[in-house]
Amino acid sequence: MYFHFLLLALLFIFPATLRSEDGSQLWLRFSKQVKPVGTIQVIKGKSTDVTLALAKQELECYWKGGDVILKLDPSRKDLKDGYQISQHENQVYMIAGQSVGILYAVYHLLRLQETGAGIPRSGLVEIPAYDIRVLNHWDNLDGTIERGYAGHSLWNWEELPNKLSPRYEQYGRANASIGINATVLNNVNASSDLMKTDYLKKVKALADVFRKYGIKVYVSINFSSPQNIGGLTNSDPLNQEVKRWWKSKVKEIYALIPDFGGFLVKANSEGQPGPQDYGRTHADGANMLADALSPYGGTVFWRAFVYHPTKDDRAKQAYQEFVPLDGQFRDNVILQVKNGPIDFQPREPFNPLLGAMPNTAKMLEFQLTQEYLGFSNHLVYLAPLFKEVLDSDTYANGKGQTVSKLTDNRGHLGRKTAIAAVSNIGLDTNWTGHHFAQANWYAFGRLAWNNNLSSVQIADEWIRMTFTGVQEFIDPIKKLMLESREAAVDYMMPLGLHHLFAFEHHYGPEPWGDIPGGRPDWMPWYYHNADSVGLGFDRTVNGSRAVTQYNPPLNKIYGNISTCPENLLLWFHHVSWNYRMNSGNTLWTELCFRYDHGVQKVREFQKVWDRMEKYIDRPRFLAVQAKLRIQARDAVWWKDACLQYFQCFSRQPIPYELERPIHNLEELKKIKLPMGHHN
Amino acid sequence: MYFHFLLLALLFIFPATLRSEDGSQLWLRFSKQVKPVGTIQVIKGKSTDVTLALAKQELECYWKGGDVILKLDPSRKDLKDGYQISQHENQVYMIAGQSVGILYAVYHLLRLQETGAGIPRSGLVEIPAYDIRVLNHWDNLDGTIERGYAGHSLWNWEELPNKLSPRYEQYGRANASIGINATVLNNVNASSDLMKTDYLKKVKALADVFRKYGIKVYVSINFSSPQNIGGLTNSDPLNQEVKRWWKSKVKEIYALIPDFGGFLVKANSEGQPGPQDYGRTHADGANMLADALSPYGGTVFWRAFVYHPTKDDRAKQAYQEFVPLDGQFRDNVILQVKNGPIDFQPREPFNPLLGAMPNTAKMLEFQLTQEYLGFSNHLVYLAPLFKEVLDSDTYANGKGQTVSKLTDNRGHLGRKTAIAAVSNIGLDTNWTGHHFAQANWYAFGRLAWNNNLSSVQIADEWIRMTFTGVQEFIDPIKKLMLESREAAVDYMMPLGLHHLFAFEHHYGPEPWGDIPGGRPDWMPWYYHNADSVGLGFDRTVNGSRAVTQYNPPLNKIYGNISTCPENLLLWFHHVSWNYRMNSGNTLWTELCFRYDHGVQKVREFQKVWDRMEKYIDRPRFLAVQAKLRIQARDAVWWKDACLQYFQCFSRQPIPYELERPIHNLEELKKIKLPMGHHN
Repeated sequence: MYFHFLLLALLFIFPATLRSEDGSQLWLRFSKQVKPVGTIQVIKGKSTDVTLALAKQELECYWKGGDVILKLDPSRKDLKDGYQISQHENQVYMIAGQSVGILYAVYHLLRLQETGAGIPRSGLVEIPAYDIRVLNHWDNLDGTIERGYAGHSLWNWEELPNKLSPRYEQYGRANASIGINATVLNNVNASSDLMKTDYLKKVKALADVFRKYGIKVYVSINFSSPQNIGGLTNSDPLNQEVKRWWKSKVKEIYALIPDFGGFLVKANSEGQPGPQDYGRTHADGANMLADALSPYGGTVFWRAFVYHPTKDDRAKQAYQEFVPLDGQFRDNVILQVKNGPIDFQPREPFNPLLGAMPNTAKMLEFQLTQEYLGFSNHLVYLAPLFKEVLDSDTYANGKGQTVSKLTDNRGHLGRKTAIAAVSNIGLDTNWTGHHFAQANWYAFGRLAWNNNLSSVQIADEWIRMTFTGVQEFIDPIKKLMLESREAAVDYMMPLGLHHLFAFEHHYGPEPWGDIPGGRPDWMPWYYHNADSVGLGFDRTVNGSRAVTQYNPPLNKIYGNISTCPENLLLWFHHVSWNYRMNSGNTLWTELCFRYDHGVQKVREFQKVWDRMEKYIDRPRFLAVQAKLRIQARDAVWWKDACLQYFQCFSRQPIPYELERPIHNLEELKKIKLPMGHHN
Repeated sequence: MYFHFLLLALLFIFPATLRSEDGSQLWLRFSKQVKPVGTIQVIKGKSTDVTLALAKQELECYWKGGDVILKLDPSRKDLKDGYQISQHENQVYMIAGQSVGILYAVYHLLRLQETGAGIPRSGLVEIPAYDIRVLNHWDNLDGTIERGYAGHSLWNWEELPNKLSPRYEQYGRANASIGINATVLNNVNASSDLMKTDYLKKVKALADVFRKYGIKVYVSINFSSPQNIGGLTNSDPLNQEVKRWWKSKVKEIYALIPDFGGFLVKANSEGQPGPQDYGRTHADGANMLADALSPYGGTVFWRAFVYHPTKDDRAKQAYQEFVPLDGQFRDNVILQVKNGPIDFQPREPFNPLLGAMPNTAKMLEFQLTQEYLGFSNHLVYLAPLFKEVLDSDTYANGKGQTVSKLTDNRGHLGRKTAIAAVSNIGLDTNWTGHHFAQANWYAFGRLAWNNNLSSVQIADEWIRMTFTGVQEFIDPIKKLMLESREAAVDYMMPLGLHHLFAFEHHYGPEPWGDIPGGRPDWMPWYYHNADSVGLGFDRTVNGSRAVTQYNPPLNKIYGNISTCPENLLLWFHHVSWNYRMNSGNTLWTELCFRYDHGVQKVREFQKVWDRMEKYIDRPRFLAVQAKLRIQARDAVWWKDACLQYFQCFSRQPIPYELERPIHNLEELKKIKLPMGHHN
């Protein structure tokens, strides 16, 4: 009897689900079925269709329900690469127009199984919101990753094309499981070398792996490649030789990779070459490449992230440069626009370009890698940020024209639609450095598929698949995730503050940052404008006039201090320290409370997490615990740095009821982290 | 009118008392009187008496009351070096048997003036509790100070005897103002060189400065000096040549310094030479020196701080070694006993030697320099620690025999009494590194004069003199000071834990500390004994039996887990993790709450201090603020290190309502501070 109790106790203490995990399986922690319950039948698929075979195999391995019939029906073009699932008695039917649609349906079914959800009685139809759902890797050919915080690049260029890492398959499967169907392999600050035949063969090897998972390969190109590796005297897009060079190069690529996706281009931005070097426009450059790709169905993603060290507000420049070009781009060019007008800050208003250029295809660029959000040390669930942007009403032609509606398949010009995110993936065992950063990869894929999903839904299914289905774990962790982005905004840059980051590496605060002779638009003071009067960037009609780039009534709403949302207040206004906020606090006091609130939130996250110890495996518990500790320290660092620096201007005490700084400003100013762009 | 308001406003914002200060004036911030009110008259003093002249001058400069009559009356031997003050109408009378008594009375009067107190109607008589009130400087001849955290040594040996720093006078005056009348100039780990004639001339120069302030000079000697600098073959205290060498050396010293105080000796301790090197006893060694000093009225302070790397409990060894020698020491030998049986820990029980050896003169040794209390970074007001020891009942011959009664002028054998403290003074402008560490110097002086004073009284007068008489400042700061030692105990070593310090430098926690092959009694595990069962050092009759060194009933009280005071629990007992404390918590939970409480207290101190900004000058406000921030960080460091280390043994969670650790144990273990013994 005693022995039995002991056994029971042991089972209770070490439930089977608590086996050690390293995060390498991501959200795909399916357990193999021991004994098949039903049969998996494929209808109308070719026996040579590797994608269909994969779909079938996944079910055979992991599906624990009854019979499943997979039916490929090329006539169902309405489904695009989506699918339809229905259930009759114990039998599941899947229909898709493309074999990758069947694969997506299979992952949908397995997700339902793993999260304990069922197929709705009426069945379900899933058609993706965007045609191209693409990850941008900022991976360099030397294996480093710009803004990478999860180890070196997955792509082992030295070993390619002869040796294929098993992680390429795992990468393909993970992306297919959330509907990502495109990848840009290399950094937008691109090396021309990738256009060399040797490298193209390596790209082909990867494309061959990814094809089975429905993923098309794209590359970032260096606009000066014709000169750099082609031996031409210039790279002028109107130069016939240049055009010929690109046409020939594209032909070579498609000979190797018949389903090659196309090019991503960062041109005339932050020192990169581009058409403006020859007095040409962005449209001239993009169209030249588009013409080369067009015969093969390829696409150009042309980045709108441009700004110059001029006197005018950096936030206005992309709009100024691109709006005049509206309507001039080829049909297979999509303008890739960062979600905000500056650069992936913890909070920005949506980029006004997204509400302009009605005759140009535009796509969003999000950033999964947390360049401005604590690298892979801070737990920041980004779905709420993505949703905030997608749901923003641009008021282009009246109310209801949200960013999502203007960029997804609903609103577009019959051209391809796309959505991109800068990857947070590296060679780390758990792929993303922080176990919870996997949720951002996951959330991007899910939203790229269906931008109507809520942050809550996505978090819920991710937690269930990644950790456990125990409600006592799911509820607090979901709450934590949903609050995490706002917490980061609070301890880093509340109320619309932005770009107070340390120079170059962007880890940690440096609101005092200044480099004599450096570009003003790379200096924090350019953005915060702290002075004895107040704080913030006056972008009203009395200031930089950036508000005028927003459609009415947003221009008025943002431009008026009393109607501007407080979470963007210092983005649009230079606000007096004693300005009365909605809370009744002055700006200074509110700022203090916000920073403090961010710190307290992270400490609360720590408490929440530590209580979860018994629900999950120890290695992941400890890893996240360790990261949260760093985050808690960093939050205090941010608070102490920013409040004490701004206090030099406000000349007011931090409210005495708040926890006091533990760092001295002069010490903080001395911190210089040995970090660069690349990790 | 407007102009007047402005002027008033300015006066309000910058009151005269808020002039910048650097702490160099200590508690002697008297403002010069502009116009004398009364006359200062000296009766019966010799015109050549520099001490009397100084006393008169101090009054003439700073006394703002009426006439004062200073009367030297050598017949009043009952007053010792004390004094009597009375007031008749507007005239103050001071009487003393020695001219230094007049000086002390003058500082008393000025203290009353500065603190806003008056002379009691019945007058006052002050007779010191101890004859010798001595600072021990652990200053080396190269200018470094062992365990010094306030800059290098005040004594500029290179410039002496020709050049005299003005700080020597200031040092003398500061000590005189609180009744300190003796100083040991050099480190107990002593260089023999100080006995060389060249150095003795330097000592003489200092003695000549300090004489005016009633301060006698002592030196620490190296027991091997006869060999090291005398050319003898040994330093055996029974060797006639050795005796002769010391007699001759003492004669030389008194020829230079007729009022030389005597020697402090650390012998056969931590590698220092001593009589045991020749098979002699501590008594043999001490008596040999005492015999040399005796003709001139000199005294030997013989330290009882001895321990060896034996199997027996270090806490027991001084007692074991000295008790058999009771009654064997000459009348001019005083056994100098550290307040606790280990080594100046944040909390120790009183040293059992203090309740033993009835036929031996004993004196307390306190430590002002915060070797084990956060150096000059932590604000720890030590008067409560001193009082705790002084008020401890030793039960030697029954109840009421407190440590103070056994060591001060009430209880002694007709021999000289003394009390010592290791100095916290250095070349720093503010003398002690931390502005509040001045309070410990002050408190030691005041308690050495009158051990009946309370920690509250001393803090009150120190704050009034050092900072301000504004009640809004005094009340919270006094509370803070009084709570500060307990806070430090809580965040460092609550419940009787001890010696968890980092190796050698003793700054910060290292409970895991272990050096393969190192002395066990220098390792933290030797003291905390953490294991899967519990925590603490079993010193009961079932353990090391250290409790038996305490007189009944203390041996039983300490030896019984249910009667042992909880603040010494882990000093005397190895306690089970689940032992139920008085609070109802288990030991583990209580430990967590204690550490957390320490952290929260320091954060509270920060809040209290920051609210004081308007009451004091900015430089000192900022300096203390900066130190409190370090203390707040260190407190968390201590908590995280100790709790997480002990958690490896308790295997229990830190109560989830408590703030979570922000450091990972493995990171903390890597911290190695570049510090040594000397600073």
